[in-house]
Amino acid sequence: MRHGPDLSQHDGMDVFEVMQTARAMRKLKPDPVPEELIDRILEAAVCAPNGGNQQKWWFLVVTDPTIKEQVQPYYAAALQEAHSYAYASLPPGTTRAQHDRQFSEVTHLTEHFHEAPVWIVLCLDVGEGEPSFSSGASIYPAAQNVILAARALGLGATFTNRHLRYAKEVDAVFALPPTVRSYAIIPIGWPDKPFGKVRRQPVETVTYRNTWGNRA
Amino acid sequence: MRHGPDLSQHDGMDVFEVMQTARAMRKLKPDPVPEELIDRILEAAVCAPNGGNQQKWWFLVVTDPTIKEQVQPYYAAALQEAHSYAYASLPPGTTRAQHDRQFSEVTHLTEHFHEAPVWIVLCLDVGEGEPSFSSGASIYPAAQNVILAARALGLGATFTNRHLRYAKEVDAVFALPPTVRSYAIIPIGWPDKPFGKVRRQPVETVTYRNTWGNRA
Repeated sequence: MRHGPDLSQHDGMDVFEVMQTARAMRKLKPDPVPEELIDRILEAAVCAPNGGNQQKWWFLVVTDPTIKEQVQPYYAAALQEAHSYAYASLPPGTTRAQHDRQFSEVTHLTEHFHEAPVWIVLCLDVGEGEPSFSSGASIYPAAQNVILAARALGLGATFTNRHLRYAKEVDAVFALPPTVRSYAIIPIGWPDKPFGKVRRQPVETVTYRNTWGNRA
Repeated sequence: MRHGPDLSQHDGMDVFEVMQTARAMRKLKPDPVPEELIDRILEAAVCAPNGGNQQKWWFLVVTDPTIKEQVQPYYAAALQEAHSYAYASLPPGTTRAQHDRQFSEVTHLTEHFHEAPVWIVLCLDVGEGEPSFSSGASIYPAAQNVILAARALGLGATFTNRHLRYAKEVDAVFALPPTVRSYAIIPIGWPDKPFGKVRRQPVETVTYRNTWGNRA
């Protein structure tokens, strides 16, 4: 069984279409992902802006089942604790049925987290002390490039950082040194369905002109 | 004088090429940017992943010179304080001459910050209390979509968040309510030069397999 069309076919995919259809793909086939596709994703990741172009980022490509199996229980425990998720007020523009379906996909991803063939773990060297609330500026743009590159290559991916409820424990599994922290884990694999459009509320509802509250 | 080719011409721009050439464009012409291009950028922004798809983001489109002029001095003061920038160890893969040239562009952007025709200010409702070090996960992916969409439309943009040294003061200029914070200001305008490739160290130097330090 062959997975994924050849690479050349993906070149030329429109950037706007990629962004609009880069939905969280939470059901992944266990089939392996070719190394050269992961390389292309990483090449995309490092194009992202980052503070002073210091590139204090690190990327772990995790395929070893024993590592993934050690992390999954923390991810699962975090879902249990995040009661708020299931009962949270509905995301804007989402029906209860859509939300329930999404929650069932989240549960699926959680139970099968370690079965995704590849994780890309995005890490940042934050130096001594606690990272600020804006420290993610030097790593989350790279995470978005990972998501977009995966989508463009026909690979399913989901942005996750729920493991950070157990950041210390998970970073220990990855053997990160003291100044380096994980910021996101992106499980990647071949998706089990076509890429649909992301569901969002209209732009106008979240946009103001010049200052807060000004719709003019 | 007409700026920018017609929109249809931008459709089909390859997502990988966009990522590779979305360099910080720090010298912008003061000429206005058509409203419909800003709309397309915002449409791209809201496609980004965000926590629980709660979309707690807000986008300010700032064109009013009086608002921009109130913010610019904070941005400039922050550069003065960030002595570290000019004297920082060279970014990996960058020569001293390249770094000096970049610093002169940073200085230019700082002095002319308020002259960029449009800012997109990315904000997040973080609720009560201090946002965590990973809170940017719900807004910085959207910032990257802004950068990429601008690039695809031929517009120059730069990811900035240096104003956060004066976050309280700047957020007050934008009249943000107590639970909403700005996370980035992206000045946008027509660039004064072609888009070059971003400069980064090779992916291999920032990639490990499975656990830290493992190059296998």
